[in-house]
Amino acid sequence: MDFSSDNASGASREVMQALLAANDGFAPAYGADSWTLEAQARISEVFERPCATFLVATGTASNALALAAITPPWGAVFAHSDAHIMGDECGAPEFFTAGAKLVGLSGDAGKIAPEALRTALAAFPRGLVKQVQASALSLSQATESGTLYALSEIAALTQIAHEAGLQVHMDGARFANSIASLGCSPADMTWRAGVDVLSLGASKNGTIACEAVVFFNPQQALDFAFRRKRGGHTLSKGRFLAAQMNAWLNDDHWLDLASRANAHAQALAHGLRQIEGVRLPWPVQINEVFAILPQHMDAALKSAGARYYDWPARRLAPAFAPGANERFVRLLTSFSTPQRDVEKFIETARKATRG
Amino acid sequence: MDFSSDNASGASREVMQALLAANDGFAPAYGADSWTLEAQARISEVFERPCATFLVATGTASNALALAAITPPWGAVFAHSDAHIMGDECGAPEFFTAGAKLVGLSGDAGKIAPEALRTALAAFPRGLVKQVQASALSLSQATESGTLYALSEIAALTQIAHEAGLQVHMDGARFANSIASLGCSPADMTWRAGVDVLSLGASKNGTIACEAVVFFNPQQALDFAFRRKRGGHTLSKGRFLAAQMNAWLNDDHWLDLASRANAHAQALAHGLRQIEGVRLPWPVQINEVFAILPQHMDAALKSAGARYYDWPARRLAPAFAPGANERFVRLLTSFSTPQRDVEKFIETARKATRG
Amino acid sequence: MDFSSDNASGASREVMQALLAANDGFAPAYGADSWTLEAQARISEVFERPCATFLVATGTASNALALAAITPPWGAVFAHSDAHIMGDECGAPEFFTAGAKLVGLSGDAGKIAPEALRTALAAFPRGLVKQVQASALSLSQATESGTLYALSEIAALTQIAHEAGLQVHMDGARFANSIASLGCSPADMTWRAGVDVLSLGASKNGTIACEAVVFFNPQQALDFAFRRKRGGHTLSKGRFLAAQMNAWLNDDHWLDLASRANAHAQALAHGLRQIEGVRLPWPVQINEVFAILPQHMDAALKSAGARYYDWPARRLAPAFAPGANERFVRLLTSFSTPQRDVEKFIETARKATRG
Amino acid sequence: MDFSSDNASGASREVMQALLAANDGFAPAYGADSWTLEAQARISEVFERPCATFLVATGTASNALALAAITPPWGAVFAHSDAHIMGDECGAPEFFTAGAKLVGLSGDAGKIAPEALRTALAAFPRGLVKQVQASALSLSQATESGTLYALSEIAALTQIAHEAGLQVHMDGARFANSIASLGCSPADMTWRAGVDVLSLGASKNGTIACEAVVFFNPQQALDFAFRRKRGGHTLSKGRFLAAQMNAWLNDDHWLDLASRANAHAQALAHGLRQIEGVRLPWPVQINEVFAILPQHMDAALKSAGARYYDWPARRLAPAFAPGANERFVRLLTSFSTPQRDVEKFIETARKATRG
Repeated sequence: MDFSSDNASGASREVMQALLAANDGFAPAYGADSWTLEAQARISEVFERPCATFLVATGTASNALALAAITPPWGAVFAHSDAHIMGDECGAPEFFTAGAKLVGLSGDAGKIAPEALRTALAAFPRGLVKQVQASALSLSQATESGTLYALSEIAALTQIAHEAGLQVHMDGARFANSIASLGCSPADMTWRAGVDVLSLGASKNGTIACEAVVFFNPQQALDFAFRRKRGGHTLSKGRFLAAQMNAWLNDDHWLDLASRANAHAQALAHGLRQIEGVRLPWPVQINEVFAILPQHMDAALKSAGARYYDWPARRLAPAFAPGANERFVRLLTSFSTPQRDVEKFIETARKATRG
Repeated sequence: MDFSSDNASGASREVMQALLAANDGFAPAYGADSWTLEAQARISEVFERPCATFLVATGTASNALALAAITPPWGAVFAHSDAHIMGDECGAPEFFTAGAKLVGLSGDAGKIAPEALRTALAAFPRGLVKQVQASALSLSQATESGTLYALSEIAALTQIAHEAGLQVHMDGARFANSIASLGCSPADMTWRAGVDVLSLGASKNGTIACEAVVFFNPQQALDFAFRRKRGGHTLSKGRFLAAQMNAWLNDDHWLDLASRANAHAQALAHGLRQIEGVRLPWPVQINEVFAILPQHMDAALKSAGARYYDWPARRLAPAFAPGANERFVRLLTSFSTPQRDVEKFIETARKATRG
Repeated sequence: MDFSSDNASGASREVMQALLAANDGFAPAYGADSWTLEAQARISEVFERPCATFLVATGTASNALALAAITPPWGAVFAHSDAHIMGDECGAPEFFTAGAKLVGLSGDAGKIAPEALRTALAAFPRGLVKQVQASALSLSQATESGTLYALSEIAALTQIAHEAGLQVHMDGARFANSIASLGCSPADMTWRAGVDVLSLGASKNGTIACEAVVFFNPQQALDFAFRRKRGGHTLSKGRFLAAQMNAWLNDDHWLDLASRANAHAQALAHGLRQIEGVRLPWPVQINEVFAILPQHMDAALKSAGARYYDWPARRLAPAFAPGANERFVRLLTSFSTPQRDVEKFIETARKATRG
Repeated sequence: MDFSSDNASGASREVMQALLAANDGFAPAYGADSWTLEAQARISEVFERPCATFLVATGTASNALALAAITPPWGAVFAHSDAHIMGDECGAPEFFTAGAKLVGLSGDAGKIAPEALRTALAAFPRGLVKQVQASALSLSQATESGTLYALSEIAALTQIAHEAGLQVHMDGARFANSIASLGCSPADMTWRAGVDVLSLGASKNGTIACEAVVFFNPQQALDFAFRRKRGGHTLSKGRFLAAQMNAWLNDDHWLDLASRANAHAQALAHGLRQIEGVRLPWPVQINEVFAILPQHMDAALKSAGARYYDWPARRLAPAFAPGANERFVRLLTSFSTPQRDVEKFIETARKATRG
């Protein structure tokens, strides 16, 4: 019963087969190979628009490099206070941007409230030299609370950002899960809604290590090859990154994987909602379930071998503040989560109500 | 006939099998998995000493992060003018060190002359505030000219460095080829000869993407986990890096692969030396052959489908300066180079002498 | 009636005379002159302890360089949300620290609440690699709200910080005003209360441009000369910085100047408190008065030629939120503020109540 | 007899008077004062073109900030190997550019040989991602050898640079001395000869601390105010920088001061040339004399109280390599060098020939 992270899962069989297949023969190094060209073409196709695409091996690199491309060192990047770039990347965005400031915004369920963005922007008057300059908005789709912005919500935030002269980045570490959940097109969730550059994550959803930085306006990517190289993120054998991406995108494999992960989360949520004493603070929209559990239930689950993380209670709205005998936890599912683990988890929790 | 780069080859069958095997089930993320623990233990064993080991996916990351750990931003890093860190990493060492200065040293055949190091150090008096402070020496073993330092040569340079208060880094992008060629122990070629931190490369010699930063004094590595994370170089699914390293080190597989690559280079060199008009400027000690070819031979080889790079003539000593009708080229072999390609290359070259 | 900033004032007569006197003859460059040695000795005397002192020309340099000396790039610096380093230095701390994260803390009247510090520290567990590491606390004495920490309050905060392994910086841009107000010794307000490094500001209080970075533990300053040089902050003719500092410290001149500035602020505050419709949100403890004025009074004052800044209402506690017809303003006095300007300001404000 | 540095001199009487005069009353902070506006206008006038001008307090800041404005972090800056930015600023250019690479070029007498520039540029092919990109040329006028480029030499170098897509910076730490020596117009020596941005130094020639970064194309300066602020180089009381600059430029005061300094150097050189055993390796064109002295003469001069620096013999062409009984020294004069010191120096040297 491993619900610790979607990073705890491996890669799909299809992706591993593609890796093996890519191992044949010789290929030009540093991304000049045919797999990489194919991946770039495939991504432009998926997004219905000529994109400038760069593959890297980690989500942190993808986010930090993308942000560095759209903000100067004296820039301010606005993101939700709980965003991955704010507190889970050990300052990588600050490192790659040469010291830009990340400004945390509030909002329920991990989603930036438009008013919070407007208020924050008002505190950064353009041209006031003593302050860093508002330069980028970073949206996480899905959010760190496992929730999703509706397309109209994305559009509303990007419009505020663009009107203030900002560029918009989307952290799509769970992009596939988001698309699978919303059922919209990748184009609709990104550039048609005002996103300028996307960190498209595949690592958490079926590959071993593969992420793409996708610029919807290739003009913004002119320097990116240098940034990536200088960051040590240009793999010498680029075919092995691209082969993963190609297999992942092929025949909607990425969406199949994501749908499976999402369905497990729905099953978990459905089961938990029926158990007395369990509270779910946020809607379950992707492959993450956040739950407030009675302490004895948490103990029983862990005794039974369930793995998952405690989560910071400060992220909860006051109405959901855990009591002294409650624990706030995060459960993550993946395409490879066994159905029986979901069932066993629910069953264990249900029995523990009597604890 | 691909002699363009050892990065053009794929991974060994053993390494690919290990990747597949590692894909089973769940594993803790970010390097807390058992594969990673095993890799760390194996490396300490290989080097006969408790090491602090960190896996990353690229050689540039490995070099730049290692240097950042041993030099302050106001430091000077001494390396051969032709070293990979000097001109092939787009300024990654400068980026990761926050602006340290790389000082190029001269020396025949890619090897730093001790006198060049002494002279350079004399120009950086300790404590003179207007100058950056001599902080690190970086040795490439093997060098960018495909040559090797003898153990005594390494010891002589590290002694000069240590006496001046420097730390010593070894760029071991082709470490396996070097060990296979010298027949010495990894410990003898590193810490016993005065090396403090090693970039141990596996990517060019049989893996898909795997490098290790190895600190022989773990005290120097206390901050390294933060540097790596902040650089975006901590893979979420660490087991896939470690599984490569483990298979690579297992049963001297790394040395077998390297020996094969080296043997191909010896065969190439042997064949070329017997062809009139071909000159080899440097001894062939690993899997690289540098040759000065008559222009028509170069043309014939390329017509026949041979792939290899022209190399900058400025790296040659005056005695080997290419004439107007000569080309200076680099030929790289790998474990997967077909023997028939070596033979065909020699045969094609031989025939072209009559051109 | 210029109450815009203490930076709008010039230097004292004594300081200018010292500058003139220092202009005689030749002196070693880059801080090896006798004036600089004297300044260093004087500061150790003033602080009753051997200090390592470095002069620079701006407060931003002083703060940013001091912070860079005590935090790694992956560090977190805690400061009040309204602190100068947070929003008034265009990201200089991020630049000099190579990307450390500044974490804003709340607290009434510009003063960090101990509980806010404790809560923030709890969110940065030591050794958790995905997060930046808590490394420094920066206290502003006086605060950006013109208020002062009591010595016991400083000690309480530094104790929390030290227990968590942090170093403590004090931004003393208005250090002289603070000492003059509290009547304590410089040692009591700094190292005896747990401060590790001080940015001692003289520019706002009688010099043309002079600040000192003072390390109470000289061991922490071993690299500082390089940081300062590399930042372009080592003046070639160091005697002109030091001559200012020496004149400023001589015969308690610095405290005389500060006392004059403080007294003007007290007079302003006293006068304003007696005027109906004027509200003072915070105690007036140094040379700054923050006031909520009726809009027509604000207009009348500006018509009469008074210069001062509007201040962000978001810094006020809810109880002091300005109404639609109110303006929140900052009034700064200096040693050179004419007494008649204070009187005229009060008189103008008083008359405007009838407006 | 202080010939150690022009930084060892003080400021001129006129400049000090201007400082005193500027101390009256209140002035807007951070460069919004009338003195600064005047300085900006004066510089545009002096250079016969609308310039974007920014004042700072040190030459290192001026150089490093100017370079940061014209090179990306992955850029290469070409300069003479002996240039001040190469070895005398503790890596400030690397710091402010976020890690650009400085590439040293050779050339007699401190002047870059056009062929050296062409050869170096050829080694940095545009767009080759593994290498940093050629981005800027920095010329020192005058050079660190006290020599001057003819206008045609500047034009030849800037043409090569511009054709390769580089921007051109001029380090004008001794700009006034250069203009006074060449007798040309400031415009002729800068933008008319292809210079894009100038570091105009006044500190070494009559002010206490004042430098200007002058952009001849103001479009390149759009971000400069943020860079300067973030670097801690925006003085709060800007009037005191500008007052120096205004007095310095007024009535050709800057050229008078420089001419005096130059004349002292000519007198020194004239005297030394007539003394047996003394060799001058380079033409004396500004206020610097480099000389190879017999050891006993050097000893006699120092005994007599002369102050000057030994200089690195590696900078000399082989023909001038000092013998075992010779010392290579640098003598600097300034506007305030007493004529009698020059005479005494020559007299002492002459007497020592008999030593």
